[in-house]
Amino acid sequence: MIGAGQLARMTQQAAIALGVELRVLAGSPGESAARVISDVRLGDYRELADLRDFAKGCDAVTFDHEHVPTEHVRALAADGLAVHPGADALVHAQDKAVMRERLTAIGAPCPPWRRIETAADVEAFGAEHGWPVVLKAVRGGYDGRGVWVCRSAEEAAEVLASGVPLMAEAFVSFERELAVLVARSPHGQGVSYPVVETVQRDGICVEVLAPAPGLDPEQAAVAQRIALNIAHELGVTGLLAVEMFATPSGLVVNELAMRPHNSGHWTIDGARTSQFEQHLRAVLDLPLGSPSMAAPVVVMANLLGGDDPDVFSRYEHVMAHDPGIKVHFYGKEVRPGRKIGHVTALGTDLDEVRARARHAAVYLSEGVYT
Amino acid sequence: MIGAGQLARMTQQAAIALGVELRVLAGSPGESAARVISDVRLGDYRELADLRDFAKGCDAVTFDHEHVPTEHVRALAADGLAVHPGADALVHAQDKAVMRERLTAIGAPCPPWRRIETAADVEAFGAEHGWPVVLKAVRGGYDGRGVWVCRSAEEAAEVLASGVPLMAEAFVSFERELAVLVARSPHGQGVSYPVVETVQRDGICVEVLAPAPGLDPEQAAVAQRIALNIAHELGVTGLLAVEMFATPSGLVVNELAMRPHNSGHWTIDGARTSQFEQHLRAVLDLPLGSPSMAAPVVVMANLLGGDDPDVFSRYEHVMAHDPGIKVHFYGKEVRPGRKIGHVTALGTDLDEVRARARHAAVYLSEGVYT
Repeated sequence: MIGAGQLARMTQQAAIALGVELRVLAGSPGESAARVISDVRLGDYRELADLRDFAKGCDAVTFDHEHVPTEHVRALAADGLAVHPGADALVHAQDKAVMRERLTAIGAPCPPWRRIETAADVEAFGAEHGWPVVLKAVRGGYDGRGVWVCRSAEEAAEVLASGVPLMAEAFVSFERELAVLVARSPHGQGVSYPVVETVQRDGICVEVLAPAPGLDPEQAAVAQRIALNIAHELGVTGLLAVEMFATPSGLVVNELAMRPHNSGHWTIDGARTSQFEQHLRAVLDLPLGSPSMAAPVVVMANLLGGDDPDVFSRYEHVMAHDPGIKVHFYGKEVRPGRKIGHVTALGTDLDEVRARARHAAVYLSEGVYT
Repeated sequence: MIGAGQLARMTQQAAIALGVELRVLAGSPGESAARVISDVRLGDYRELADLRDFAKGCDAVTFDHEHVPTEHVRALAADGLAVHPGADALVHAQDKAVMRERLTAIGAPCPPWRRIETAADVEAFGAEHGWPVVLKAVRGGYDGRGVWVCRSAEEAAEVLASGVPLMAEAFVSFERELAVLVARSPHGQGVSYPVVETVQRDGICVEVLAPAPGLDPEQAAVAQRIALNIAHELGVTGLLAVEMFATPSGLVVNELAMRPHNSGHWTIDGARTSQFEQHLRAVLDLPLGSPSMAAPVVVMANLLGGDDPDVFSRYEHVMAHDPGIKVHFYGKEVRPGRKIGHVTALGTDLDEVRARARHAAVYLSEGVYT
């Protein structure tokens, strides 16, 4: 796995069970996954030579993030390596304009969008589709970075001044955000987890509710079909997370990710097969595991770093308060607002399960009793 | 954790989630846990100097096996280290005669037993309690090794000739074997998992049924009370597994182990808190986790090495056959009869769940379709 963040770290838990010897490419030995994996190689994922050294002897190569240059992914495959997802699929998670072109072509629901270069382009787009206009960096954004909601041509001009390649999208007035996580193997087997609701704050996912509360079963099936169809049409191998907006007139695809995803962390404790095991099974072309839930309601809450870095000292309270809460800590240095872990609660009543997850997350992050 | 077998390996999965930095003392880098943990120290658990080097800087020290000399455990504690379980508790899992003395003293149900030295001692014991007589090595036995069922004085004489320190126990004619896994923290908090039935073949556990099928709830409560009482009286910190015989006249304690135990492997997938997480929480004096089950019926089957070492090639069949089966592979060299992994199945119907677990275990071990 190229990259050694928390996704690689949690993949190691699944690899241990399967007897898969997981190797990671880390930028430094202190990274989240590098702390818990024995086979750590140090290198730069932007350097093809480092990637080639790293991949030597691997049965399959996959990713903890989207930032490996597409041409390097292609070069590794040309070397004869099994790279999952492959470059032709992965580019859709790397380049938002390529993604929109392809989704439009296969009929997946998208907001109005356009590649833009000048202030005049944005003004024309705003005149046609209304304001605000959402500007997105074509490459490199995550967790709300690289996305600007512009209320006027002046605001858009400021973003344009940065020189980053941009595209425009119509602002989608949504009721809530949903996510569908699917897996697809090189054999073409596909499986979908239940549709979840993701709750964001300041562009960062803070809470995931599984299954999405009150979702009409037909709309859930539509969402799963959209995601499985994207995986099929794009030739995704491994996991695909499809973030969607639920609007009064239907679903709209927002973003794609081709790796284990924050919206699927609930599956570690809450599904028969965790997304990390599922990703390993998919990239190794093993039959996929059951996505069924381990409880009627599962809520995952992210731990965001607060002012006090001593998270571990607060374990005592949350564990005593709720013996069923599952704590996941990424071993990362605590910085305000940074994702440093998550908690998962399972049960039958949404309000109760959600309150438990939130209590633990807020207490661990900030030491505040809610 | 001193020792780097599969118990340490599976403890790493729990340590990753909790953000606990697990260090293991391994005899060689190829051992099961050493393959998946970054902080591996090589050394000999029988050498105090190696143990001291290993333990330097650890917040707590615990064990993957019972074979560390009791006096070394005592010496580490005298150095100021938090050792769990401590020597005074651990000796009861190391020395079967000390265990029987103590259990007899606290009123836990034991078979008739006696320390023996000569053939005459065995004959006298047999005359009093009947034949066969069970001879046990006082120290060092496991998985049926160090236990001899002697039908006559002649058979006993052969065992005595080995020179190993022995004790005699009356042969218990049991209906089935049960196991109770409890955890106790230094604070004195105790928790018990549901009572399970363990199925042995040639002295090796092959299958664990959770909960023990058809067990009378009152007898289950008695079994749990016996185990919690032993943990309390012996001052156990960490996990305690109590193996019991169910006989027509009640429960009889067979063996004790003070570490994660084969009879608790089902908890990884089948309980809210795995035994490995529970052990870490106990030895770090954190509040204990919920022992509740994730499904009404959970069956664990051990994978014993067969003639064909290529277990991984057989994943495809078992995963395709049963997307809900959980496979755990220990990364150990395959040798006939050696425990190389386990599988877990969850569900509601015992016969069906048991058949699923058995099918996967037999196929993975031997490539035979049952």
